[in-house]
Amino acid sequence: MVKFAVLGCGRIGRMHALNLARHPRVELAYVYDVAPAAAAAVADSTKARQAGTVDEILSADVAAVLIASSTDTHLDLLVRAVEAGKAVLCEKPIDLDLAKVDASWARIQARDPTIMVGFNRRFDASFKALRERIRAGEIGKLEQVIITSRDPGPPPVAYIETSGGLFRDMTIHDFDLARYLMGDIQAVHAIGANLVDPAIKRAGDIDAAMITLVAQSGALCQINNSRRSVYGYDQRIEAFGERGMLQAGNQRPTTVSYWGAAATEARDPVLNFFIERYTPAYLAEIDHFVDCVENGTAPLVGYRDGREALRLADAALESMRTGRTTRLE
Amino acid sequence: MVKFAVLGCGRIGRMHALNLARHPRVELAYVYDVAPAAAAAVADSTKARQAGTVDEILSADVAAVLIASSTDTHLDLLVRAVEAGKAVLCEKPIDLDLAKVDASWARIQARDPTIMVGFNRRFDASFKALRERIRAGEIGKLEQVIITSRDPGPPPVAYIETSGGLFRDMTIHDFDLARYLMGDIQAVHAIGANLVDPAIKRAGDIDAAMITLVAQSGALCQINNSRRSVYGYDQRIEAFGERGMLQAGNQRPTTVSYWGAAATEARDPVLNFFIERYTPAYLAEIDHFVDCVENGTAPLVGYRDGREALRLADAALESMRTGRTTRLE
Amino acid sequence: MVKFAVLGCGRIGRMHALNLARHPRVELAYVYDVAPAAAAAVADSTKARQAGTVDEILSADVAAVLIASSTDTHLDLLVRAVEAGKAVLCEKPIDLDLAKVDASWARIQARDPTIMVGFNRRFDASFKALRERIRAGEIGKLEQVIITSRDPGPPPVAYIETSGGLFRDMTIHDFDLARYLMGDIQAVHAIGANLVDPAIKRAGDIDAAMITLVAQSGALCQINNSRRSVYGYDQRIEAFGERGMLQAGNQRPTTVSYWGAAATEARDPVLNFFIERYTPAYLAEIDHFVDCVENGTAPLVGYRDGREALRLADAALESMRTGRTTRLE
Amino acid sequence: MVKFAVLGCGRIGRMHALNLARHPRVELAYVYDVAPAAAAAVADSTKARQAGTVDEILSADVAAVLIASSTDTHLDLLVRAVEAGKAVLCEKPIDLDLAKVDASWARIQARDPTIMVGFNRRFDASFKALRERIRAGEIGKLEQVIITSRDPGPPPVAYIETSGGLFRDMTIHDFDLARYLMGDIQAVHAIGANLVDPAIKRAGDIDAAMITLVAQSGALCQINNSRRSVYGYDQRIEAFGERGMLQAGNQRPTTVSYWGAAATEARDPVLNFFIERYTPAYLAEIDHFVDCVENGTAPLVGYRDGREALRLADAALESMRTGRTTRLE
Repeated sequence: MVKFAVLGCGRIGRMHALNLARHPRVELAYVYDVAPAAAAAVADSTKARQAGTVDEILSADVAAVLIASSTDTHLDLLVRAVEAGKAVLCEKPIDLDLAKVDASWARIQARDPTIMVGFNRRFDASFKALRERIRAGEIGKLEQVIITSRDPGPPPVAYIETSGGLFRDMTIHDFDLARYLMGDIQAVHAIGANLVDPAIKRAGDIDAAMITLVAQSGALCQINNSRRSVYGYDQRIEAFGERGMLQAGNQRPTTVSYWGAAATEARDPVLNFFIERYTPAYLAEIDHFVDCVENGTAPLVGYRDGREALRLADAALESMRTGRTTRLE
Repeated sequence: MVKFAVLGCGRIGRMHALNLARHPRVELAYVYDVAPAAAAAVADSTKARQAGTVDEILSADVAAVLIASSTDTHLDLLVRAVEAGKAVLCEKPIDLDLAKVDASWARIQARDPTIMVGFNRRFDASFKALRERIRAGEIGKLEQVIITSRDPGPPPVAYIETSGGLFRDMTIHDFDLARYLMGDIQAVHAIGANLVDPAIKRAGDIDAAMITLVAQSGALCQINNSRRSVYGYDQRIEAFGERGMLQAGNQRPTTVSYWGAAATEARDPVLNFFIERYTPAYLAEIDHFVDCVENGTAPLVGYRDGREALRLADAALESMRTGRTTRLE
Repeated sequence: MVKFAVLGCGRIGRMHALNLARHPRVELAYVYDVAPAAAAAVADSTKARQAGTVDEILSADVAAVLIASSTDTHLDLLVRAVEAGKAVLCEKPIDLDLAKVDASWARIQARDPTIMVGFNRRFDASFKALRERIRAGEIGKLEQVIITSRDPGPPPVAYIETSGGLFRDMTIHDFDLARYLMGDIQAVHAIGANLVDPAIKRAGDIDAAMITLVAQSGALCQINNSRRSVYGYDQRIEAFGERGMLQAGNQRPTTVSYWGAAATEARDPVLNFFIERYTPAYLAEIDHFVDCVENGTAPLVGYRDGREALRLADAALESMRTGRTTRLE
Repeated sequence: MVKFAVLGCGRIGRMHALNLARHPRVELAYVYDVAPAAAAAVADSTKARQAGTVDEILSADVAAVLIASSTDTHLDLLVRAVEAGKAVLCEKPIDLDLAKVDASWARIQARDPTIMVGFNRRFDASFKALRERIRAGEIGKLEQVIITSRDPGPPPVAYIETSGGLFRDMTIHDFDLARYLMGDIQAVHAIGANLVDPAIKRAGDIDAAMITLVAQSGALCQINNSRRSVYGYDQRIEAFGERGMLQAGNQRPTTVSYWGAAATEARDPVLNFFIERYTPAYLAEIDHFVDCVENGTAPLVGYRDGREALRLADAALESMRTGRTTRLE
């Protein structure tokens, strides 16, 4: 049994806490949130103890800490937890500032910490299968990847304002997926737009984007993003190679299709958002992290992956500002 | 060049005449209809001569006659055309009376006539491919066939009254398809119902049916029929075997699909009726018949096939009346 | 919290026990099996106590009993459990003998027992949604139902020998589904065949079947069954009505499709068998039963439903023997 | 009847000639090719006269000229034909040199010529339906377009060398499609790659590309290209808007799908190349042009459309060279 604490009991922290509480090899010992009521609610549902401070958790006998607090606190909590000897599963992004990410790594690197970043999509059964089939050579050399990633609706403007912007907040998942499928990236081009909600523009962010990546292998990748998709959370991958193509599509609550006078084979809207869509992925993510903590093995998605995704987001921002393709050394 | 005449210039006769007129190895020489205006209209569109009588055609220098007149005239015209030395492409059914079908055969058999029955579905590219793939062993031994055959809407009651009933008029295509895929049939069970239009019941016919066949090979087949399908002309086959399954589906005017808040991947209604759905099949059917006439070879679907489909329709009628499975010797 | 015992710890009993052990409103108190080792293994995984006898359970303070023992013991255990005041969730079929089913009911009826029969498919999200959309009028009057139900591979012959035969063991699910969608049935016709495994024939059973039902509403239904389907557990429903059609299709482990030189849009094999395919349905089934026990409400699928499905199986057997459509009064 | 001549009897010229010969309102009077044997073969199949020179055609009584010769002759023939008073249907691209395109226009503009450019995809039923549904408001404001366009295999290197390069030869169709769907374009970014065939690189061209466009409306577009797609000629459009999405997919020779132990729902490879894929589009294109010639109306895709597509190709080339987004004034 691995003793866990959850820091941050908002929407995603609560989901993780409930998943941990049901995991057969986990004991969820503590939960914490800056808003005590949020932590209390999760404690009630899970038999975990509500910690009064982060330090109470860091000095307690817990092996692993899951960080799901607000983005601006991720890196500080991660460093403190590592220094307290804990394994860390940290929600994305690690931070919004690449320099700080590198400085923190310099500080904790020598400890050889067990750190995993919550890029949940790597644990999606379909995306994993797609990657394994690429690796197994089913489509030969990988040449093109198309990633479609559209949220069902925009978050509140207050969220946008502290999010670090679309690339660091939303596309960061797609940047990681691109690396997951294609390896490291050598060039980035990005065009952003305000097509969805004028309030997002007023907040200084974009709400739609098209990004092109060139992998070090030479393969090409297109990402398209939108903060609004009326038919649900649109999450698709197409991988094209010399011997064929693999596609991973959307998921729906049922298999029912309707045939009527105006339309045929009409299916349900796709699952609405990340918690519904990636439920099994979140469970698999935790399961993998528990394995790593138990066995002392390195997580499949580590600190460097978190850092590289952020670096791609920064490169995309620069490209959007300059109109130039950003080359990564 | 094969010189043709068309007898019967209604909806389907007109379509055949236009197809013949455009065929590169055909000269459409004559058209005829009991309603002279119908023949005149087709003659206008095709440069064919409008014949005043059937005899004018039978005594003319034409090699082949396409019979698309009303069902009750098919067999008489077929016999007369054969006796005049013509090759015959006859619309289904040959006749509604099995005894007459057999008597006519006895009369013309010695001539070894070139007779083809217009079971157009045998020439559909998808159904043909499905059959060829069964024959090539792709699904191993064929065990089950499911045929879905639903018209978009019922014909006029006047048509129903002279149609010979649903089994002889509509299911006859499915009986032939079953034989095309499975070979000869040893047993038939049928249940009919009046679900669509009370006027059809008053006319003494059914408008929906479920039929089960047992092939001599032991394979089983289910046919379902309806005289009304709001999403278009529903024409599907499923062939299930020891090593897999093949399905042939419906066809639509475009590949466009729609994703909206209420439905996703919604496609067009399927092609509406036989002329739209089977356009390429009708062309291929004529092409095959022209080949047969030119080369003196036997059509893939001959008099016996027309007779056997009618025999299955009769067996289904008997089963519906008695509630028993009809065994064919 | 509802205290439960599980009788029978074979494949399906074990699955139910694990599901109960994880249910937030259930305490799995006891497990029992005639083979003590099977019960011990389940007890180990669940913290339930292993009972030495059934009576130990029936006299204990448990509110509900789940019966997943061998079919020939179902009815006796059900009656004893009811007489001990327990709510009962009984796997299908209740029994193989309709007379005994009716006699048992006469004995326990006055107790107004809470009895649910394990027709898991009623709890499948897709089948439920299909039914609700029929009821909501989306396709108007329901006219035709096509149920495809093919197991991935045949069970051991030893199982076949005590199974009661294909209709009572396998089709019984489809008979219940037909009633779930169409209401009570007035006529049954069945044709069975031996297409899959000669050993099944030697054991006196069939391994493929095509069944036609007529509902009291006049609607028609076709069921097709096979004991072997190489592409997985084939479970589909098509509901056709005056204003459209609803289909519920198969489920796959991923959404990945493959496009290559020989085939395009190729999907995974479908989920292999009932435990994989109906995992969420089994959970929903238990959840519904727990609700019924807690609230004293009647389960959606009760003793009469178990009885009617068996009656349809018997009618199908009679039809298969006689070649006649069996009418149910 | 419109009298036509066809200049250029290679693969696509031959196809157009045969289509014209079968058109009910067209008389195909002349065909010409610099290789007399090619023209003779087409003349044989069509009853057209083989012209000895272009001038013989230009001075003859023909109303319309279809130009399907090699790209470097398009513009000269177009100008000469216009100056001879002919209507012109010219295969794409008009020319490879934008300055010459503009100079030629200056020369012929005053004649108000009937000129149509052979962007066949505008006449594809699915793409047309998609555009009409966008215009009808079905997905609200159009925000994103994804165009997938991959040839089944690369052309001979000799062709590549005179083709003007991938953007002017192949992507030019996609540039036109983008304008067809989104209107005029304000910015272009392109990344090219050599992933398919080293011989293409040696010939100085790329064989894969990813292009991003920004329309004047603000909408975004991604195009992906490859010179090789083993599953056939991949031609898809996705149009995403504020109220939904429309997709137009690939086409196959049959509707047959295969379900086996290793794959399910596997479909045929898609139609192999432009002549098969766009057969009905080519017919509709000719039909539209005949309408324009008969009625004196302006073709839906005129000289300016040919010029704009070329301009986008040039902008893409510049972006590829500089790494910058090219802005179009």
